[in-house]
Amino acid sequence: MSSLVAAQSWSGDSWPLPALELLGVFVFGLTGALAAARKELDALSLLILAAAAGLGGGILRDVLIGSVPPVGISDWRLLTAAAAAGVVTFFFHHRVSRIERAVLLLDAAGLGLFAVAGTLKALQLGTSPLTAVIVGVLTGVGGGVIRDLLAGDPPRLFAQREWYATPAILGSAAFAAAWDEDVRGPLVTWGCVVVIVVLRLLAIHREWELPAPRASR
Amino acid sequence: MSSLVAAQSWSGDSWPLPALELLGVFVFGLTGALAAARKELDALSLLILAAAAGLGGGILRDVLIGSVPPVGISDWRLLTAAAAAGVVTFFFHHRVSRIERAVLLLDAAGLGLFAVAGTLKALQLGTSPLTAVIVGVLTGVGGGVIRDLLAGDPPRLFAQREWYATPAILGSAAFAAAWDEDVRGPLVTWGCVVVIVVLRLLAIHREWELPAPRASR
Amino acid sequence: MSSLVAAQSWSGDSWPLPALELLGVFVFGLTGALAAARKELDALSLLILAAAAGLGGGILRDVLIGSVPPVGISDWRLLTAAAAAGVVTFFFHHRVSRIERAVLLLDAAGLGLFAVAGTLKALQLGTSPLTAVIVGVLTGVGGGVIRDLLAGDPPRLFAQREWYATPAILGSAAFAAAWDEDVRGPLVTWGCVVVIVVLRLLAIHREWELPAPRASR
Repeated sequence: MSSLVAAQSWSGDSWPLPALELLGVFVFGLTGALAAARKELDALSLLILAAAAGLGGGILRDVLIGSVPPVGISDWRLLTAAAAAGVVTFFFHHRVSRIERAVLLLDAAGLGLFAVAGTLKALQLGTSPLTAVIVGVLTGVGGGVIRDLLAGDPPRLFAQREWYATPAILGSAAFAAAWDEDVRGPLVTWGCVVVIVVLRLLAIHREWELPAPRASR
Repeated sequence: MSSLVAAQSWSGDSWPLPALELLGVFVFGLTGALAAARKELDALSLLILAAAAGLGGGILRDVLIGSVPPVGISDWRLLTAAAAAGVVTFFFHHRVSRIERAVLLLDAAGLGLFAVAGTLKALQLGTSPLTAVIVGVLTGVGGGVIRDLLAGDPPRLFAQREWYATPAILGSAAFAAAWDEDVRGPLVTWGCVVVIVVLRLLAIHREWELPAPRASR
Repeated sequence: MSSLVAAQSWSGDSWPLPALELLGVFVFGLTGALAAARKELDALSLLILAAAAGLGGGILRDVLIGSVPPVGISDWRLLTAAAAAGVVTFFFHHRVSRIERAVLLLDAAGLGLFAVAGTLKALQLGTSPLTAVIVGVLTGVGGGVIRDLLAGDPPRLFAQREWYATPAILGSAAFAAAWDEDVRGPLVTWGCVVVIVVLRLLAIHREWELPAPRASR
């Protein structure tokens, strides 16, 4: 059952580009490995944090929708992508952190890919559109939260007033709404990924912020 | 299967008042949203922390007993209750935090409702009474722990020497023991909820504390 | 299904000594209870941290492989072992912490037992060897990470450059490789446990460290 789902999500019509999900794992993995390198953790800790960041969102998703064992601990391609992020960071972390701007861009790509992939997987398993959107957003932001908790940091998700979850919510909702109307296919899928990525990059560039409740005193 | 369980827990004889489980989500949601407001997080972070606190205990319960996807990400009524807690806090957090005494009372109500509801759901799924009590207590205290971890705080559950988990354990154990003796029905259910709430409020009022091991030096 | 698996893992040929899994829970439980005692938490918090440390790794394993409810909340023997660790620490924590060297040794034993038991349980449920190794390592290190997060500390797993996860990875991989070649039985099982324990103790004694990426400045 779970391997069937995995097969669908890799070979299905609506999700034609496994290369990009791998890229998502790799890029999120870089953020985990960089966090480890900044704290001067050892090679294995670095690898574990790369895996936690790269695979954590998908593992959370699969546990929540009952697709166990999660692909994050069973698909060797995803595991290899996370490990590759760790190895690259171990040897080239000075350079990787210098291109933090590029990482930010790739992180936006990862967010979009994971959010849409999570939403799609939940819909394929027959959840309601509402549940699918929640699962998609958790897939997109979960890896970063798990990375921060394991690294002993407060989750950055809440620290950044910048739109981070917002683009994921909007893109996942659009995707689920289209699916519900039987508007499906690669164009819709990729359109929603692009919407998320563009909104996220615009939010960084223009420093869009959500309102906060006024301070208590 | 999972939707059947959800239906039972909402319409069954022993659990007749969904309004109160909704109240539990709402009240725990307030505690999450207030934590976010104190840290001056933005609107979406506040909403996410409200959902984590209000729905986290039930999600943990459902994952542990295999009832997936958890009602906490699939029942729109519960999601709405958590969102309402976020919205109310966003606009009125000055007032909400002023009535912290009332929140404390409602938090006690949430603890009682969630502990008994969690115990009941586990028993309905056929677990042993012991497992059901553990699941019930985790349902009652889980949301608060998840809230604190996400907010970057050490879990308050362990900071407060006041009886917090204790009333939940006693009430859940009484409920599971009665169930095991085929003593069931609304009266038992509500009796156990009331026992938990009253014990918790007495513990606050009289500052009941559990013993601690003596300091090492 | 899950109870069948539990029965297998307790009575099966390859895993003949439940007494030692109980010892693993007890020993990891001690580490959780000691953390609570050091922070002068109350008796119930101490018990909860003992349970989280002793049972957390197995609960994580069972959720990931879909064997729910996890034995960590359903097998009264394991629950009793965790509770016993809490009770012993509550009354004798001065003495327990004085024998920290012994605890370190027992912790190594727990790591070996849990890693192999986790790998075995995953293989019995039909996962691939790769997945089984990951599950085994998560079983071995998971309890400690959950303990630290709940206690509000950064996970010690990443703080210690000493080999901690490394022996678990090597021993689990050896066990899964042998299983895959149909080389099974108590001798293999215990051999792998011993390999992990010995490597871990050597790592402590000789202060083996993994390399870390060089500091950024």
